[in-house]
Amino acid sequence: MRVPVKYITMSEPITITAAAELIRNGALTPTDLLEQCLARCDRYEDRVRAWVVIDRDGAREQASRLTAELKAGQCRGPLHGIPVGVKDIIDVFDLPTACGSKRWAHSYARRDATCVARLRAAGAVIMGKTVTTAYASFDPPPTRNPWNLERTPGGSSSGSAAAVACGMCLGALATQTGGSITRPASYCGVYSLKPTHGRVSVDGVLPLAPSLDHIGVMANSVRDLALLLQPLARTDTDEVPKPYHYSREIEHPRMYERHKELAALPDFASGRAEPAMARAFERLQKNTAKAGWAWCDLPLPPAFADAPKNQFTLMGVEAAAYHGERMRRFPDDYPPKVRSLIEHGQRTSAPDFANLMSHCASLREEIESAFVDMWKVFATPATPGPAPSAETTGDPAFNAPWSYVGLPTVSLPFAWSADGLPLAVQLVGQRWCEDDLLATAAMLEADVAFERRELPT
Amino acid sequence: MRVPVKYITMSEPITITAAAELIRNGALTPTDLLEQCLARCDRYEDRVRAWVVIDRDGAREQASRLTAELKAGQCRGPLHGIPVGVKDIIDVFDLPTACGSKRWAHSYARRDATCVARLRAAGAVIMGKTVTTAYASFDPPPTRNPWNLERTPGGSSSGSAAAVACGMCLGALATQTGGSITRPASYCGVYSLKPTHGRVSVDGVLPLAPSLDHIGVMANSVRDLALLLQPLARTDTDEVPKPYHYSREIEHPRMYERHKELAALPDFASGRAEPAMARAFERLQKNTAKAGWAWCDLPLPPAFADAPKNQFTLMGVEAAAYHGERMRRFPDDYPPKVRSLIEHGQRTSAPDFANLMSHCASLREEIESAFVDMWKVFATPATPGPAPSAETTGDPAFNAPWSYVGLPTVSLPFAWSADGLPLAVQLVGQRWCEDDLLATAAMLEADVAFERRELPT
Repeated sequence: MRVPVKYITMSEPITITAAAELIRNGALTPTDLLEQCLARCDRYEDRVRAWVVIDRDGAREQASRLTAELKAGQCRGPLHGIPVGVKDIIDVFDLPTACGSKRWAHSYARRDATCVARLRAAGAVIMGKTVTTAYASFDPPPTRNPWNLERTPGGSSSGSAAAVACGMCLGALATQTGGSITRPASYCGVYSLKPTHGRVSVDGVLPLAPSLDHIGVMANSVRDLALLLQPLARTDTDEVPKPYHYSREIEHPRMYERHKELAALPDFASGRAEPAMARAFERLQKNTAKAGWAWCDLPLPPAFADAPKNQFTLMGVEAAAYHGERMRRFPDDYPPKVRSLIEHGQRTSAPDFANLMSHCASLREEIESAFVDMWKVFATPATPGPAPSAETTGDPAFNAPWSYVGLPTVSLPFAWSADGLPLAVQLVGQRWCEDDLLATAAMLEADVAFERRELPT
Repeated sequence: MRVPVKYITMSEPITITAAAELIRNGALTPTDLLEQCLARCDRYEDRVRAWVVIDRDGAREQASRLTAELKAGQCRGPLHGIPVGVKDIIDVFDLPTACGSKRWAHSYARRDATCVARLRAAGAVIMGKTVTTAYASFDPPPTRNPWNLERTPGGSSSGSAAAVACGMCLGALATQTGGSITRPASYCGVYSLKPTHGRVSVDGVLPLAPSLDHIGVMANSVRDLALLLQPLARTDTDEVPKPYHYSREIEHPRMYERHKELAALPDFASGRAEPAMARAFERLQKNTAKAGWAWCDLPLPPAFADAPKNQFTLMGVEAAAYHGERMRRFPDDYPPKVRSLIEHGQRTSAPDFANLMSHCASLREEIESAFVDMWKVFATPATPGPAPSAETTGDPAFNAPWSYVGLPTVSLPFAWSADGLPLAVQLVGQRWCEDDLLATAAMLEADVAFERRELPT
């Protein structure tokens, strides 16, 4: 007998955590959950344009197979039957990977990227490809912010953020080289994780700048992020420390007592956060202090001042290494902002680049020693303010330095702007310590008690 | 002052070895050599149809850059400026990898396959993509045999063999799972090398059956094969023995005295070689004996009898693992022979497959122990006879067992059939010993003194 799907006639997007529980106890099937997501697509996709392609037939087949597995008593774990979107610079077998390029619009992938294969093996339903800006750079995409169609969803993982915000899928794969995960997630009011650089394999993913390219995830709760990270974390190389059981970390903090402690970086946002964000962040500090959180202020190392500029140059140089020759042959396939990024890289001299790489290495060390001394998670506003106009993809200034130093970050929405747009906080953890970072983020999530809203219709 | 290109107004395809010498001493530029190849394309391609795409602009840019490097005194080695073709299941950056599929006809590659990247780094000019049968299986391709347009060029590396035979390029990348390198090379009268399974990385290459998939090369002399193998041989893993300097091996055999010794396998071809091939092979044995070659007859291990059948089943099962689901979704994209192969795989039971894998492993050991005892290279006809009608791709029976056991093979043309088609001999070497195999093949090549002919016009 089929259980009615009333559990997900949701006034807000359902979390993976909640759906997994319903699926596990038989109250919801993967097929029913997928149909619910497809219904959300029917409702929002025309306006929001989060997808390059929704593979309805393929997703239905996957869901039906996973439904049958459950009937046969087989459950692959918490991602069994969870519909996810995949940013369109990441290969999904036999769907095109267009990367925002016209020339590559029909470039079918011959195999899944490693990250996709691992989500699929964990039971996720791959729903389709979400819009990316051209080559994961800064040119505005067709996607709109679901909270206000005049505003940008952020970039470059625009479609992933918008799709999760609409409940068109419960989680999504995204990538960040500057601020391409944290920024769109924050603008769209969803949760995001950018793991440590190297934690997730980039095999099968279009490079923008390999020294900075991160694979990450978006979803509707911190625990959901942990569930998505679990199968993605590399276990195939000794260069990456073995992953923990991330969601268990959230529920059962380990031996050392986990303090509710956060380090603010007053220099970081000072003068760059818009008034609405600055006020909201102050309120966040006050309210959480009442809930038992200890805040301290940390100074930034002086070398940090060059991080934004150097991140942009490093991104430009490595993007030019991949795209330079191709842009010369096919100039029409490069819109203005990515063109300008690549040209910036082409103008950079090799000695300047060598100095930059030294700066990057020494800043990474310096920042890490700050962590080791202080044993704290950093907290900053995730963006300067709420999502700006759709003529831009927003400002990655608060995110790009963390891509530059390669540390893991989590962002979570915590407030609404006066004009009804989400505002998010960004937490920065120690290298390879996604477990601590996620556990801290989950405690903060509980105390922030972000008030969810239904999307405008 | 520009040296005239008279050296390559050839009455026969020029070898890489000869072209490299001319390029090194300044008598020929990469640009001139490429133009000569493009002229051969103009002359033959309409009828022969060896190419899916000839990247004239891209190849000219590469050649011009390599010409400039030489002027600046930089030579990358013997492949500097050598035009090569790439089978269209192998990724070349920003050219489509269609794999003989309609659905994938415009699937641009985001990066070079490892084998392409290594040839490119060694100075080769990547001219374009050569025709493959659909998914590297048995369905007849549009390509025709340049020696007789009514005949097949063989498959599945049809375009690579035909292009090299026509002098449209000097070398080509090819792949073999059954007989897809040796057979077309033999039918088209060019030289081929299928290295040991695993010697060359398959990264960026469409799989047909990974346990059997080999990357190899075609060219117009044994030494050319050695020059092409050199950069392709894997050096990035301890699982593959380090490569030798293959062309030096040919010129300066190593410490042990290299005997002119070959082991025939009378059971192997018996009753399966057509009379023309059987007679030609006998003559080969007699003539080479006069030139000092010692021949012995070796019996095949009894387990060898199941090799052809098991090779086909293993290929079918692994092809079904990759293609099965896709064939169900897109049946129109699967012509009859590859469909039938995949269906054969789908009908195979898992226990049968497990037994087959054990058979394969024990046969590999048994065959290798024969080598260790005898220290000989095996020699067999490369095909049952000359190229048959273009309605087939010919019979891989003489090649597939060597794909099954994974041993390296070289094929070289040695005679002409009465109707003017090339006949080839196949040499089989010890695992990882491409050096010995190529040295033996080069000595045989010298003594066979294959009489080259100009193509029919």
